[in-house]
Amino acid sequence: MVNELHFDAPITPDLVQKVINEQEIRGYYDLVDQNLEALYTFQGEFEEHYPEVDNIVVIGIGGSSLGTKAIYNFLRGSQKLKRKIYFLESTDPVEIYDLIETIDLSKSHFLVISKSGTTIETISIFKCIYSRLDQKSQYFSFVTEEGSKLHQFAISIGSKTLFLPQNVGGRFSVLSNVGLLPLILVGVDIKALLDGAKSLKKEFFEGKAIQETLLKKATYIAKNYNVYHINTLFAYSETLKYFCEWYVQLWGESLGKVQQHGILNVGLTPIGLIGPKDQHSFLQLLIEGNRDKSVTFITIEDFGNGVSIPNIELPYLEDLNLVNGVDFNQLINLQAKATLLSLENVNIPVDTIVLEKIDEANIGRLLFYYQLLTSLVGILFDVNTYDQPAVEGGKKILKEMLQEIKEKG
Amino acid sequence: MVNELHFDAPITPDLVQKVINEQEIRGYYDLVDQNLEALYTFQGEFEEHYPEVDNIVVIGIGGSSLGTKAIYNFLRGSQKLKRKIYFLESTDPVEIYDLIETIDLSKSHFLVISKSGTTIETISIFKCIYSRLDQKSQYFSFVTEEGSKLHQFAISIGSKTLFLPQNVGGRFSVLSNVGLLPLILVGVDIKALLDGAKSLKKEFFEGKAIQETLLKKATYIAKNYNVYHINTLFAYSETLKYFCEWYVQLWGESLGKVQQHGILNVGLTPIGLIGPKDQHSFLQLLIEGNRDKSVTFITIEDFGNGVSIPNIELPYLEDLNLVNGVDFNQLINLQAKATLLSLENVNIPVDTIVLEKIDEANIGRLLFYYQLLTSLVGILFDVNTYDQPAVEGGKKILKEMLQEIKEKG
Repeated sequence: MVNELHFDAPITPDLVQKVINEQEIRGYYDLVDQNLEALYTFQGEFEEHYPEVDNIVVIGIGGSSLGTKAIYNFLRGSQKLKRKIYFLESTDPVEIYDLIETIDLSKSHFLVISKSGTTIETISIFKCIYSRLDQKSQYFSFVTEEGSKLHQFAISIGSKTLFLPQNVGGRFSVLSNVGLLPLILVGVDIKALLDGAKSLKKEFFEGKAIQETLLKKATYIAKNYNVYHINTLFAYSETLKYFCEWYVQLWGESLGKVQQHGILNVGLTPIGLIGPKDQHSFLQLLIEGNRDKSVTFITIEDFGNGVSIPNIELPYLEDLNLVNGVDFNQLINLQAKATLLSLENVNIPVDTIVLEKIDEANIGRLLFYYQLLTSLVGILFDVNTYDQPAVEGGKKILKEMLQEIKEKG
Repeated sequence: MVNELHFDAPITPDLVQKVINEQEIRGYYDLVDQNLEALYTFQGEFEEHYPEVDNIVVIGIGGSSLGTKAIYNFLRGSQKLKRKIYFLESTDPVEIYDLIETIDLSKSHFLVISKSGTTIETISIFKCIYSRLDQKSQYFSFVTEEGSKLHQFAISIGSKTLFLPQNVGGRFSVLSNVGLLPLILVGVDIKALLDGAKSLKKEFFEGKAIQETLLKKATYIAKNYNVYHINTLFAYSETLKYFCEWYVQLWGESLGKVQQHGILNVGLTPIGLIGPKDQHSFLQLLIEGNRDKSVTFITIEDFGNGVSIPNIELPYLEDLNLVNGVDFNQLINLQAKATLLSLENVNIPVDTIVLEKIDEANIGRLLFYYQLLTSLVGILFDVNTYDQPAVEGGKKILKEMLQEIKEKG
């Protein structure tokens, strides 16, 4: 994974020191060095007891599912994974019913994932599945904070629990048991994933090239906040669709805050686009609409896949012979480059991230890169990057409504 | 479908007259009254000749696929449709390979859809599929403008073509053969779909309540452009995920323009969110981030589906007993309401659209509502709502790159 900026910016002094200080109190930085023993033991026992399981179903929402989804969907087209992962995260009745009817519940194992253990969507869906199965304990495992109510419940039914470190927030938890447990059970190489993330961390803190790049990019984004307050990812591969969703949560929820030493509402609006599809949807707005967006292109150098456009000439369609013999891998990257040049022509700030190939190490680096960038911008914005106080209001209103319904009977 | 504004605004004088004038030259308004004879004939012959076909594969991108995707994904969980629709729209090699390997090509019929007939993605993917099949003509049908190169090619191989009216732009074409052909072949009631759209059009032009609502909303959006330049759809159902993608293209590509009588770059940035999932992703930014967003809630009154949360008490999780016995249909709508109230508490402008149920008439009304709203705002913005000049630059650069590669051999 290599990042190149097509703009220049000064570097904020002291920024590295501030991240070093923060690193000591924020758990996500240490996840790359975690002990994987408990996960491998879990996996060994799982394969021994449940070899017939075909489906891993994650019951979790937001930070408990987005990271897993991003990694799984990046890898699954290129590797023969041994099981499928499904996600139950919405309270949409059509969606829940659809999954219950589609998969064989008896060949499924459910991972109930919730940091606090009291997420209303997660517990509601869990109750719905739980009530449909006999001999319950074997179908469920849990990921939550040690000692949470959900942990105590898991003990009471004799199910296993893996823990979430206490100082790791939901949207920074992808490289904890939250992401690693479902991924290891379908055959993802979680060691390679963590090593990818670790390589990025190491290079940054050792002052390699990526340090300067990240510091410049963070400074540029923060300094130009009043002009470019929408940050667009333009990823040229369908495999990165859910990575974009993970990014939207990370960026939006971390930076959309009231400042710590002021009363200003600040924030950056994240948008995820997939090329070339969204050239036919969003590009017109990028080029001719209000100039409030920066764009980061993500491309994959080698898709490891040789589908090419056959060398055939079709009557009346001779104008398009120029794609003959080109492989799609080359075409999609040329499309990214052409789009980038068309944005540069109108002075839109762009940068590029190139992933060498579709594997665990590359997505590990990319995830850590974005977590670090978010932390850096959070420091420059003077916000608490790791909380989400504003979402509590709606939850409280919902509980009151439910209470009222209960009381009315 | 009912729309309620939680804000007030004056109505721009003459706006209705301007839409009436525009309606005479823009074809999309008339689609609701089109003759469906050719479609029913096509369908009849298709069922007679190809009863064994299981898959309809749309090869098309942008306006040629997004509308169909929106309708299909809205309906498919609630109706037993007789076939599946797949979409080939990306030049991502992993995606193309995945579909070719997954579906039985011999039981598939491919609809090649391109207004101009020279879309590079569409023709490249078409060549790839075309070269893999024998007795080619039976596998393909085409939707394009009459007389286009693609139409001439279709004649040359003996395949059928249905036409796109010449004065209907791609992103306004969902209710033309572009959307209707794939939908009728999987069993969607296209007459009910058009009647839904027609009811909205009729009420608007006859001056019913929806006229005042739409005029106020368009005026509010245009007048407050400098403050609220991001327009968020918060749809509380997974079935509306692709409707949001259709909206993003319609809104972004129609309104992101240089003005017709000035040189200003204007535009509104569309964002599609799905609840309750995105409460755990984007809500923090909406409430505490920069206050540059308006939010439209879309909810479904009756999902036609009775999944409910079982009335069981689980040890340690007693706090969540308040969801017991509630059905998911009720829960998801309470979640929408709670989120709406939490946004109103901080003075974010909101409005609500309620769909009575999941059927053709409701999605038809909703699609027409958004096309009309886009046209109204386009008039107030003084832009050409129906072109997309800025996307040509990148296409030209791409062709030059491909030419260069050809010449180098």
